[in-house]
Amino acid sequence: MKLNCDMGESFGSWTKGMDAEVMPYIDMANIACGFHASDPLTMDRTVRVAIAEKVAIGAHPGYPDLLGFGRRDIEFAPEELQALLVYQIAALDGICRTHGTAIEYVKPHGALYNKMAVDRTTLATVMAAVRNYAPHCPLVVMATPDADEVLALAADLGIDVWFEAFSDRAYSDEGRLVKRSVKNAVHDTPEAIEKQVTQIVTEGSVTSISGKRIPIKADTLCIHGDSQHAVEAARHMRQVVESL
Amino acid sequence: MKLNCDMGESFGSWTKGMDAEVMPYIDMANIACGFHASDPLTMDRTVRVAIAEKVAIGAHPGYPDLLGFGRRDIEFAPEELQALLVYQIAALDGICRTHGTAIEYVKPHGALYNKMAVDRTTLATVMAAVRNYAPHCPLVVMATPDADEVLALAADLGIDVWFEAFSDRAYSDEGRLVKRSVKNAVHDTPEAIEKQVTQIVTEGSVTSISGKRIPIKADTLCIHGDSQHAVEAARHMRQVVESL
Amino acid sequence: MKLNCDMGESFGSWTKGMDAEVMPYIDMANIACGFHASDPLTMDRTVRVAIAEKVAIGAHPGYPDLLGFGRRDIEFAPEELQALLVYQIAALDGICRTHGTAIEYVKPHGALYNKMAVDRTTLATVMAAVRNYAPHCPLVVMATPDADEVLALAADLGIDVWFEAFSDRAYSDEGRLVKRSVKNAVHDTPEAIEKQVTQIVTEGSVTSISGKRIPIKADTLCIHGDSQHAVEAARHMRQVVESL
Amino acid sequence: MKLNCDMGESFGSWTKGMDAEVMPYIDMANIACGFHASDPLTMDRTVRVAIAEKVAIGAHPGYPDLLGFGRRDIEFAPEELQALLVYQIAALDGICRTHGTAIEYVKPHGALYNKMAVDRTTLATVMAAVRNYAPHCPLVVMATPDADEVLALAADLGIDVWFEAFSDRAYSDEGRLVKRSVKNAVHDTPEAIEKQVTQIVTEGSVTSISGKRIPIKADTLCIHGDSQHAVEAARHMRQVVESL
Repeated sequence: MKLNCDMGESFGSWTKGMDAEVMPYIDMANIACGFHASDPLTMDRTVRVAIAEKVAIGAHPGYPDLLGFGRRDIEFAPEELQALLVYQIAALDGICRTHGTAIEYVKPHGALYNKMAVDRTTLATVMAAVRNYAPHCPLVVMATPDADEVLALAADLGIDVWFEAFSDRAYSDEGRLVKRSVKNAVHDTPEAIEKQVTQIVTEGSVTSISGKRIPIKADTLCIHGDSQHAVEAARHMRQVVESL
Repeated sequence: MKLNCDMGESFGSWTKGMDAEVMPYIDMANIACGFHASDPLTMDRTVRVAIAEKVAIGAHPGYPDLLGFGRRDIEFAPEELQALLVYQIAALDGICRTHGTAIEYVKPHGALYNKMAVDRTTLATVMAAVRNYAPHCPLVVMATPDADEVLALAADLGIDVWFEAFSDRAYSDEGRLVKRSVKNAVHDTPEAIEKQVTQIVTEGSVTSISGKRIPIKADTLCIHGDSQHAVEAARHMRQVVESL
Repeated sequence: MKLNCDMGESFGSWTKGMDAEVMPYIDMANIACGFHASDPLTMDRTVRVAIAEKVAIGAHPGYPDLLGFGRRDIEFAPEELQALLVYQIAALDGICRTHGTAIEYVKPHGALYNKMAVDRTTLATVMAAVRNYAPHCPLVVMATPDADEVLALAADLGIDVWFEAFSDRAYSDEGRLVKRSVKNAVHDTPEAIEKQVTQIVTEGSVTSISGKRIPIKADTLCIHGDSQHAVEAARHMRQVVESL
Repeated sequence: MKLNCDMGESFGSWTKGMDAEVMPYIDMANIACGFHASDPLTMDRTVRVAIAEKVAIGAHPGYPDLLGFGRRDIEFAPEELQALLVYQIAALDGICRTHGTAIEYVKPHGALYNKMAVDRTTLATVMAAVRNYAPHCPLVVMATPDADEVLALAADLGIDVWFEAFSDRAYSDEGRLVKRSVKNAVHDTPEAIEKQVTQIVTEGSVTSISGKRIPIKADTLCIHGDSQHAVEAARHMRQVVESL
């Protein structure tokens, strides 16, 4: 079970995230590509840190919306969305190449990530973009009960998929994330988080907010790197995963 | 003698340039990379046109300044400038790769292009960026009488250089472009342009604004694609060059 | 019946619209405010032209989306949308004030304009923004059969409303604009346009795409200024309106 | 002796500065206007805090350069610079007006502020912009030995000027700030800062880095609000100034 974390989310003189401190505890660094966060220099520096810590680098493209941090849905025609994605993925990959490495996967950000999970056209467009530029790179998508449909689409389009589960978010009976505005949507104790991670890793399931057991196949777990206690949480998560 | 032209300079709903009409008459398309002009979809469409017309594609990176079209000097530390360049070059190259091709050279835009010609630190930074991402790609620089120094620096840094001359701009006695604000800085008759091109191609020199003969070694000539009579001018230039 | 037209939609070195040529034929210039189009210098120049032609100036704020020209819906919390609107309206009004004049109305742009017509929360937010900054300025909204509800909301919030009708767009049986993707959604002959304008002015109605008579109360008609034949169309529209 | 501090320098989801904590100790809040930092919602929120703490609000316009935080010089023609300034000043003033207040002064930011101190054309352009939009608002400029020339220009153009001194920066023998890259350019002990402030307030002078006494007439002192110990420093500075 690999741990991934969003990285390189600073912008110009504004800093965000405890990148250097969290990097030692993760396996995969999702590096923002300059459209919803980051800038070329920040990307370059984040790539250096990931290489030094031997962490796999993934492109983390988002909608072109710095003001909204890529968290607001914006509608794009498939042709334009593909171009936006190839541009960002290639830009990060190019920076990696100047340091002798390359991206190993792609994980879209924010509103685009969420839209992929509910809109098949968007999912297919993202898959096509990844396959066209980096056919060897898996696409990270949300682990949901309709995984088979996602896998079928990926097979059709000729790319691999990695499923991602969340350690600190409550799941609905449909196996989707409960919205943050709902009570108890976020697990806020280390015990609750540890319990959910253990169940995902050992049983391949989560217990929904109403108590139902939901099968979830996950290849990677998402860690948050921008909260105040992110470093401690990352270290704890690393221990939990390694102990299983 | 190859003809190059800036291409893909539209942005979102704003169009600029007669790309499709000019493309048939040129050898090299300098495609803007989204920082001073263009956007991912425009880049994708311009790449398609260049491929269809069998025109070599070059990255045309600039300062991050859409409002100023990359024509205003902005100071960057070498580390940041390198990252800005790799980002843009790789983004365009990535789009090319999704269409089965790749960039073949790099020509910086506007204020950055001009700064390279007068500031060795900037020139070395641009050369390093190109070599680090695309060591097989030559860098297009202004043909000036100090070509030997430029070549020595390029050899040191391990990249090739192509020199560019201008068909419609007057040269000073120092072999530099006369500023546009000066009288007679721009040749505005087809005869004057044809004469300068012929001299560059056949004699390897230009006649300065004061009448002095200035040796200029040029590999490529710059065509303008955004004026009203750009298409006719491009067609004429192609005829002139082919007739020599 | 006043004629209004979107103006000042250039951006940096990219030009759009035949502003100077169309200005003599209109009564109201909706000047873009820098978020979906325009920039401070373009706004300043457009204000000068409007003053010279004695045309009323209105703020034409939009979503912060240059790439999409403000035509894509983006979700904002009411608090943020209000701030975005006050910022843009005040910026244009400030430029007007340096020339001894002031904005006389507000007409939102593109996706925001369309959302106002179908979402009461958005409409109320826009109304509040206008009233808070410029309580003397009417808000231009689409003339629809539910005008009474719009007027009631405006009265509640303490602002005036001007209704706008379209000369060249087909209306549905519900009195809404037929989407551009539908056949015959846009009237493309001067005769069809003239007929619709005449009916709006003299009868206060339009004939829907299915032939139904729809009552439409309009204070102003929208002219397009960016098509190739915009100047001729504007002149014609001015003649039609003055002849009624 | 009034204390001023840059405020509202967050952008979207990126936060900067301890605005709420520092506000109680200052007299003047220089609020960024969205070009080098801030955004409409951040401006609105910062204005509310300033009003609550009864702090005078000043417009803090900068170059349009979010990536560089307005700290890089960019060349603008006077006509464009004026428009950029009026736009920003009016936008903030408009937000103030929706809260029943107004800006009371203008202090340019970063590279623009520095350029005003060495380039008379830029200074005159900024003065003209302020006078054209807000003739009642003084312009804050760096207190330098050539104050009389600045005052003469201001009198010519019809605006007031407030001079600003720095508590924690070393001065050269010419009465200019010593560049940050020079050793001892920044006073880093509370004692050194307190000593300089006391001398400015009680004697109207500073002691230069080489020990020379330089007369400096200052109306306001600049406080920094974004360092880690900004709040404590602000409280200390307030005590020092009130004790004199």
